[in-house]
Order: sequence, then C-alpha cells, then structure tokens
Amino acid sequence: MGYKVKVGLSNKHLHLQKDHLDILFGEGYELTMKKPITQPGQYAAEEKVDIVGPKGTLKGIRVLGPVRPETQVELAMTDARAIGIKAPIKESGKLEGTPGCKLIGPCGEVELDHGVIIAWRHVHLNPEQAAEAGVKDKDIVSLRIEGERAVVFENVLVRAGEKHEGEVHIDTDEGNAAGCGPDAVAEIIK
Amino acid sequence: MGYKVKVGLSNKHLHLQKDHLDILFGEGYELTMKKPITQPGQYAAEEKVDIVGPKGTLKGIRVLGPVRPETQVELAMTDARAIGIKAPIKESGKLEGTPGCKLIGPCGEVELDHGVIIAWRHVHLNPEQAAEAGVKDKDIVSLRIEGERAVVFENVLVRAGEKHEGEVHIDTDEGNAAGCGPDAVAEIIK
Repeated sequence: MGYKVKVGLSNKHLHLQKDHLDILFGEGYELTMKKPITQPGQYAAEEKVDIVGPKGTLKGIRVLGPVRPETQVELAMTDARAIGIKAPIKESGKLEGTPGCKLIGPCGEVELDHGVIIAWRHVHLNPEQAAEAGVKDKDIVSLRIEGERAVVFENVLVRAGEKHEGEVHIDTDEGNAAGCGPDAVAEIIK
Repeated sequence: MGYKVKVGLSNKHLHLQKDHLDILFGEGYELTMKKPITQPGQYAAEEKVDIVGPKGTLKGIRVLGPVRPETQVELAMTDARAIGIKAPIKESGKLEGTPGCKLIGPCGEVELDHGVIIAWRHVHLNPEQAAEAGVKDKDIVSLRIEGERAVVFENVLVRAGEKHEGEVHIDTDEGNAAGCGPDAVAEIIK
C-alpha cells in the first residue's frame, strides 16, 4: 500500500503582487483573510476579481493570500478555454512564456502580459510526511484515486519541505475526471 | 503493448426524443445533419438548445441525431455543477433516477423530469476491433493516455458490436485532466 494523502481540489484562483493589489483594490489595500488553507501561512482572501480573456470573462474569482512576488492566475483547462486562453501546464512560479489576461477589480484594471497557468498537479508534504512516503522534493510520482471514476495520475510533482503540509493539489477538471468528493484521498505510487 | 484506440472528446450535448423535438423546434421538424460522427448512423445536428438548471443556463448546446426513444442530456461534471445539477455517472440510456432540467428551443420549452447524466467513460469497438483487443461487450477495462498529463482511467466500459466503431469516449473534464489534444490515443489495459 502506498502512502495516502488527502486531496485538495483547486478551483480557479489567483495570487497577486503588491502593486497589482494596489491598482485593483486601491493604494495601500491589504487582503482580508476569509479562511486559512492547508498550506502553512496561506489563505483564501475575501477579495475577488474578474478575469478577462479574448473570448469571455470569469467573474468573481477568488484571490489567495498573502501577496506574492509575481501575480499568478491558476485556471483549469475548461476555464481557460472558456475565455479563449491557451494556458500551459506549469509549476507554480514558473511563469516565463505564459499568456496574460486582464484583471478587473473594484478600483482598477491590470493588463497582465503573462502569468496564466494550469497548475502542474502536485503533492505537498512536510519533511516527516515525505520521509514516511519515501519521496523527496521534486520527485515525480503517480497518484491513484479510488472510486467510480478511479484514476491513476502519472507525472505528479512532489513539493516537500517545511513550508508544505500533506495535500494533493489537482484542479477541478482533474477532480471531476476522478469523481473526487470533499473527502477524497490519493495513494502515492512510486 | 495494449490495443490502441483514438480518443473522441465528448463536449456537452443532448439527444432528443421525437415529441420533444416537435415542441422545441416545431411540429414535424426534422434534424439537419451538420456532420457524421464516428459512431455509425449518428451525427452532429445543426440544431442547438439552451439547457437550464437551478443555478444557470448552458447556452447553445448541440443536438446529436438521429432522434432517440428518450431525451438524454450529457454534461461534464464541470458543466453540471455550473448550472446546479447533481448528475450521476451513467451508461447511455440508463436514465432511471437521473435529474432533469429545462430545455429551451426556438419554438418552445420542455421541462425534463429526468435524463441528465455524466456519461460513464467507454470505448466503442466493432466486432473485429474487439476481437483484436481481446475484449467483449460490457467488459470493464483501463485506458492509458500518454503525455504531459499522462493518466490511467480505470473502470472504463467496453461497448462492442456491429453498431460501434473504434473510439474512446471521455468528456471534457476527463480530456482536460489527461491533456488530450485532437489526436489523442488511448491504450487498452486489461
């Protein structure tokens, strides 16, 4: 039996850099925590923005805090296609060569020239969990999810270290393809 | 190496029974073929309808012909959730106990009390293909799709016989989760 990790379904969301937050929500604005997420120090914010692509708009998309060095929009492929953006599958923070979009907040708009990605599916593990699972940061593993739509996801990135906490991150397309409910669990297969 | 079959991505669509076609498009109306699909005798029609759920509307959803004994709406889970319908994963034609929705056509509306499903992923094979693949109608197999988002879909239904032609049917959630382009191919794993 492989090591088991709870599944966190990532709905479309974005991270903002400080100057973009200022433009969208007003100079000196600070994000309001709605609730913490599993990864240490991160949270779902109360704030939402509209994401505009060549073919449409995704309205009211949640911002995750805290602010980051660079704005990053994370969509499922279904979302990206719906607004006409051909987004690549990328690891968080690897934004070179990615497409942009327009962001609309209550106080202003930002025209991004890059930053839209489909997140490369990954599993967060703290050092103890990684040791127990027998994997290390940057390993590539497979994950099996049981159920009516049982699936094995290959090419899953391990992100292990002090800033991580046991959780598989897959997007809504992947979660739906696997029939994941809120209590889904994945087994690491090496 | 397992037997390889091309992947057909099913976008949301519906099949109509005769009296519903009459209500939506007018008495005695006949569907207009836009183009044949891979499965023998079936086609994408020119006609489109709006699909309405408790939380929203999917506009301009394509009808597949010919007419069938019973109206059936096939959505991806992402689509179903977007309009507030909790649709079950079902084999085509197994509509007992499924939720309904409202259909709006140019000439009228139909309030379905059942018929909305998420199609159980399946592989169509003609008798020769089934023999070559070493499977038979109603078998359950796994399918592996290669690529950046390589995946193994377990619990895939085989539909084999004279009315079928080699093609894997997965929905847009599954296709996106597997990163499938238009030329995707799946390998049958028994």
